[in-house]
Amino acid sequence: MPLNEFDIIKKYFTRQSSHSTVVSTVGDACIGDDCAVVNPAQGKQLVMSMDTLVAGTHFPESATPYQIATRALCTSLSDLAAMGARPLWFTLGLTLPHVSEQWLSEFSRGLFVIADQFNVDLIGGDTTKGPLSVTVQVHGEVNTGAALMRSSAQAGDAVFVTDVVGDGAAALAMLQGANFLDDSLQKYLLARFYQPLPQIAVGESLAPLANAAIDISDGLLADAGHIARASNVVIQLDLEDIPVAEGLKNNTQCTQEQCWQWGLSGGDDYQLLFTMPLHHLEKLRGEIAAQDVTITQIGRVVSAENDQSKVVLMKQQQVCDVAHITNMQGYQHFDA
Amino acid sequence: MPLNEFDIIKKYFTRQSSHSTVVSTVGDACIGDDCAVVNPAQGKQLVMSMDTLVAGTHFPESATPYQIATRALCTSLSDLAAMGARPLWFTLGLTLPHVSEQWLSEFSRGLFVIADQFNVDLIGGDTTKGPLSVTVQVHGEVNTGAALMRSSAQAGDAVFVTDVVGDGAAALAMLQGANFLDDSLQKYLLARFYQPLPQIAVGESLAPLANAAIDISDGLLADAGHIARASNVVIQLDLEDIPVAEGLKNNTQCTQEQCWQWGLSGGDDYQLLFTMPLHHLEKLRGEIAAQDVTITQIGRVVSAENDQSKVVLMKQQQVCDVAHITNMQGYQHFDA
Repeated sequence: MPLNEFDIIKKYFTRQSSHSTVVSTVGDACIGDDCAVVNPAQGKQLVMSMDTLVAGTHFPESATPYQIATRALCTSLSDLAAMGARPLWFTLGLTLPHVSEQWLSEFSRGLFVIADQFNVDLIGGDTTKGPLSVTVQVHGEVNTGAALMRSSAQAGDAVFVTDVVGDGAAALAMLQGANFLDDSLQKYLLARFYQPLPQIAVGESLAPLANAAIDISDGLLADAGHIARASNVVIQLDLEDIPVAEGLKNNTQCTQEQCWQWGLSGGDDYQLLFTMPLHHLEKLRGEIAAQDVTITQIGRVVSAENDQSKVVLMKQQQVCDVAHITNMQGYQHFDA
Repeated sequence: MPLNEFDIIKKYFTRQSSHSTVVSTVGDACIGDDCAVVNPAQGKQLVMSMDTLVAGTHFPESATPYQIATRALCTSLSDLAAMGARPLWFTLGLTLPHVSEQWLSEFSRGLFVIADQFNVDLIGGDTTKGPLSVTVQVHGEVNTGAALMRSSAQAGDAVFVTDVVGDGAAALAMLQGANFLDDSLQKYLLARFYQPLPQIAVGESLAPLANAAIDISDGLLADAGHIARASNVVIQLDLEDIPVAEGLKNNTQCTQEQCWQWGLSGGDDYQLLFTMPLHHLEKLRGEIAAQDVTITQIGRVVSAENDQSKVVLMKQQQVCDVAHITNMQGYQHFDA
């Protein structure tokens, strides 16, 4: 007899909660009460975000259950990083065409590897029958008023990005057939696609220092545009400062233009793009010294004349025609 | 050019929040920050529940977008009712095979009809491309320690149910082809299936009075079983007291056995099943006098001998063989 929903929850998704804020969850003796019950901390605000990954749209049909799980939780947690939030809990909506214990075992193994790494508890969810998709809602906390918004960039801020951009798009190209003729690069890109580790520690350190932040899911230019519009500012980005992985830059299969296009408009990088007074940089670097992450200044925020918010790409101090580098489109679901 | 994700959110899912607890949501000028930000109230616990409805599994492919929306939000809110919680916010994960403005317009109309009725704000979510499914996560609040759990039923409690049971299963039978030869009954069942209004007001009144509660989604017997197991008690149910809609009982196409089977094991009723000291009944009825809802006593909680929790069906004070009435199975996803 196949597992039913209660068996699945009990066998694969029940763990002891590590947060004292969790009162009652799927992990209790009483599995699957109607709701999870939690105690929000005083003086904190809750932030939450939901993301759905659909087979064939957000990951290849060939992805392993372990890979699907790590990608789903990493990309959702990245939204908490972008708010400067500390992860607390998540819920999981899992839609499966059929029940396979091997599938569930691998999926839950991947899920809890990431959950453990970022100290976030699975507190509820739903399992249903249907075409494969995974919905994750993450919940985190910030000190009241300290959440990093898109709308608070200030003229005079410097613009920074964590780590490198372009890996997400290069990985997608690879999964769609591109061959970089370099095993170690391909292995690296595969890890970036399926475990785009959220910049949680950087986000928490940024909360009191930065003015605005976003995680790069739509593409650097598109996400810079989200900040520019929400903050009503102009964001200047210096093309030659945009950090791209060495392995890509040096790869014989990639032109520099291709690298720039991936970095500027590819998306799926889950790095943090943020604006902050430059004089906070040293403090930030001190706080995240234990993290293996680089912070690169890639531009600046200037006032928008006539309320014309926009993103301007600069090359050798000259405004550069973005259309020559890229089509300037970030990733958008449902786009033509 | 078709709508992109940002257009969809702006045009169909952006409304002014009615809750002062909501700091930043999809409804803000800055549409679609990485997360919604909310202020939980002091002295309250948050309860939350996620449900996914998949086309063809949880509603017929022929369902209208309006019907899909009302069913999705009603069934999710029912989980808050079962906890005795006051609804606050919800998030929406909407997966669509293609973008149709007419579809989105009808869907959002249905969604906000229910949201307005139960005073719950849409604060975030995700729209993606893929096979049609709807995931809703609802969030509510209860006074600390007051949430109605499944695990607190006490020997000596009386067992009650709101309204009638069996409508969900009868409606499903109708949608699958059964003809009741009664237009008004069929219209009634259609409404019960697509707008199973959550018993929020009853739940809130129950919170300080009842010992245990659950909403009937798996079927009366199965859900009574959940309470019995979680509370380690025996629940006796009186078959002849179980309330079934008059329109079904009197319908020429339905035998009494069929009505009992729908009522006992059909599920999808979203009524509240709860255990409470009998002496609280009058107080409860007073508090919900303004609601158009009946409360029927259908049994009692007794101690479990030798830790053997179970549900016992009684007919004319005799234990009745459940297998003669029903297969005793509640609805379970993935069951054979």
